[in-house]
Amino acid sequence: MMRTNVVLVGFGNVGRAFVRLSAEKQARLAERHGIGLRLKAVFRSGGGILAEDREVDLGREVLDRGVPKDDPRFRPGLRPEAAFDRLKPGVLVECLSAHPETGEPALGYLRAAIARGWHAVTASKGPLAADANGLRRAARSREVGFRFSAAAGAALPAADVGIRCLAGAEVVSFQGILNGTTNFLLTRMAAGQDYGSALADAQKLGIAEPDPERDISGWDSAVKLLILSNLLFDESLKLKDVKVKGLTAAPASDVRRAAAAGRKVKLLAVADRGSGRTSLRVAPEPLDARHPLFPVDGAEKGVSFLTDSMGTVTVLGGKSDPRAAAAAMLKDIILLLKDRDL
Amino acid sequence: MMRTNVVLVGFGNVGRAFVRLSAEKQARLAERHGIGLRLKAVFRSGGGILAEDREVDLGREVLDRGVPKDDPRFRPGLRPEAAFDRLKPGVLVECLSAHPETGEPALGYLRAAIARGWHAVTASKGPLAADANGLRRAARSREVGFRFSAAAGAALPAADVGIRCLAGAEVVSFQGILNGTTNFLLTRMAAGQDYGSALADAQKLGIAEPDPERDISGWDSAVKLLILSNLLFDESLKLKDVKVKGLTAAPASDVRRAAAAGRKVKLLAVADRGSGRTSLRVAPEPLDARHPLFPVDGAEKGVSFLTDSMGTVTVLGGKSDPRAAAAAMLKDIILLLKDRDL
Repeated sequence: MMRTNVVLVGFGNVGRAFVRLSAEKQARLAERHGIGLRLKAVFRSGGGILAEDREVDLGREVLDRGVPKDDPRFRPGLRPEAAFDRLKPGVLVECLSAHPETGEPALGYLRAAIARGWHAVTASKGPLAADANGLRRAARSREVGFRFSAAAGAALPAADVGIRCLAGAEVVSFQGILNGTTNFLLTRMAAGQDYGSALADAQKLGIAEPDPERDISGWDSAVKLLILSNLLFDESLKLKDVKVKGLTAAPASDVRRAAAAGRKVKLLAVADRGSGRTSLRVAPEPLDARHPLFPVDGAEKGVSFLTDSMGTVTVLGGKSDPRAAAAAMLKDIILLLKDRDL
Repeated sequence: MMRTNVVLVGFGNVGRAFVRLSAEKQARLAERHGIGLRLKAVFRSGGGILAEDREVDLGREVLDRGVPKDDPRFRPGLRPEAAFDRLKPGVLVECLSAHPETGEPALGYLRAAIARGWHAVTASKGPLAADANGLRRAARSREVGFRFSAAAGAALPAADVGIRCLAGAEVVSFQGILNGTTNFLLTRMAAGQDYGSALADAQKLGIAEPDPERDISGWDSAVKLLILSNLLFDESLKLKDVKVKGLTAAPASDVRRAAAAGRKVKLLAVADRGSGRTSLRVAPEPLDARHPLFPVDGAEKGVSFLTDSMGTVTVLGGKSDPRAAAAAMLKDIILLLKDRDL
């Protein structure tokens, strides 16, 4: 069995779900893939735990409540770079809440890990929005893997389908419903509910954040669109290159009128290379029943790729909770380590 | 640039489309992936062309009409094994029309190539139905790649999504509309057309074979279901383990009655592990509008995977013509050679 060191940076909901899921899947990882993950270090803000000769055993309480600063193993001021330097290179699992545009501090940790010959897996959109292709190039030149499923659709394999499954074709354009919150709101509004009470329901269900501005404004969709497009087309466009209209551009009356005519208004994120250069836009658009994303309702997501030689390929679904994001990172690790064997 | 020898075995529509598409994509393969494919041998029934020190330049006429037996380069009786032995190992691209259950002669060529350290890519269902996991194990132990996208959905990345994109989760069950011909017929029947004239249209459009028995009986769906299931669950079930009902189990009156009630009858292929062991069945089933495969109409296909931790992930679409199958093989080659870099 291949034993692989894991350094976990970020111990919020996704980080904890990753530790839980890895433990739960341990036997399957060993049996099916010959992979044994050894959690050697965990970092949160202000410091971390580093176990040089054994695994870090977090215990149920830490998994439930987080790493307390008075944990005897916790070393204030310890930085992830120390773990990359002292341990045999394995995989950095990064699930910080990074700055949405600079990507820091996650971006720095990803770069540091890759530079030291570690594979890297990220769940953060920030570093990808800032420098997805720079990270990819760095990983190539160090001959390590860099994967980002949890940041680009999580359980919805948007990046894998676009980049890998369609690698033999050229993607001409793609369209996505990339934000579950706004899609939930539009679905409710189409059924006659008013915006305010739909939003209250979404918050009650944990679908919408307490401050939903980034979803509602189209910003979250724009970031995801930018990341997918830059990775797929190997470009370095910036957020300012995305034309964004949010939900305010879709008044309830329009949404209901579309529904009455058998159509659905969706907050559509579109990347189009038809004109030679890539144009990116997010806006509410009415879809008719033949559109491949028409069935995407509620908090679901989906992406549809139009190609030159493989036709249109659409991928839909996938949960959005921390466990699903953790499963996406586990997938990334399996693929990094064993792709050819699958 | 990485120069990779290619031996092409099978020179029918898919084989020719592969040669055409590889030529068309040559610049992109070099620029984007650093891959240079060198076609060094082409085999058809009865012999082949082998170019030891240069590439085989087939020319437009051969690409349109096939390799004539009086081509001065054609050597009767020459076998693919000779190419595997004499050339530096690269990729076997196998697109023979193989026996549907024994997989021969394709299976033998795939085994021979892998045993000699060649990567192998197949478009044939036969070898996969006969011994998908044996081939996979052989490839693992020789540390070469073995891929089969063109045989398992072609441009619809059914196997890639199930095996790779969901690798961090456990697939509990999956359902597919795996046969375009029967789906076309059912779509037409739902719209009121009678079976006979729908079939005549399908044949006119090149969707149905002159002898459509393998599609209509559910046999083609059953083979594809078996292949996906064996690969995904690492099992070796046989065709006799699939319970198969074909289109005759869906009389036009049932199809129309379902349509009137807002449902669609689909020839559904189902693999279910709920009970501990894998059960496989193909049968016409009515789907309601919330089913993820409900939107799959006409000659389209789709697969929906239910997982333990990533929710339901559905992939739809993808062309079914020889060019799309060729693109799927090209994708397989890119992934074999460069996966970590994508």
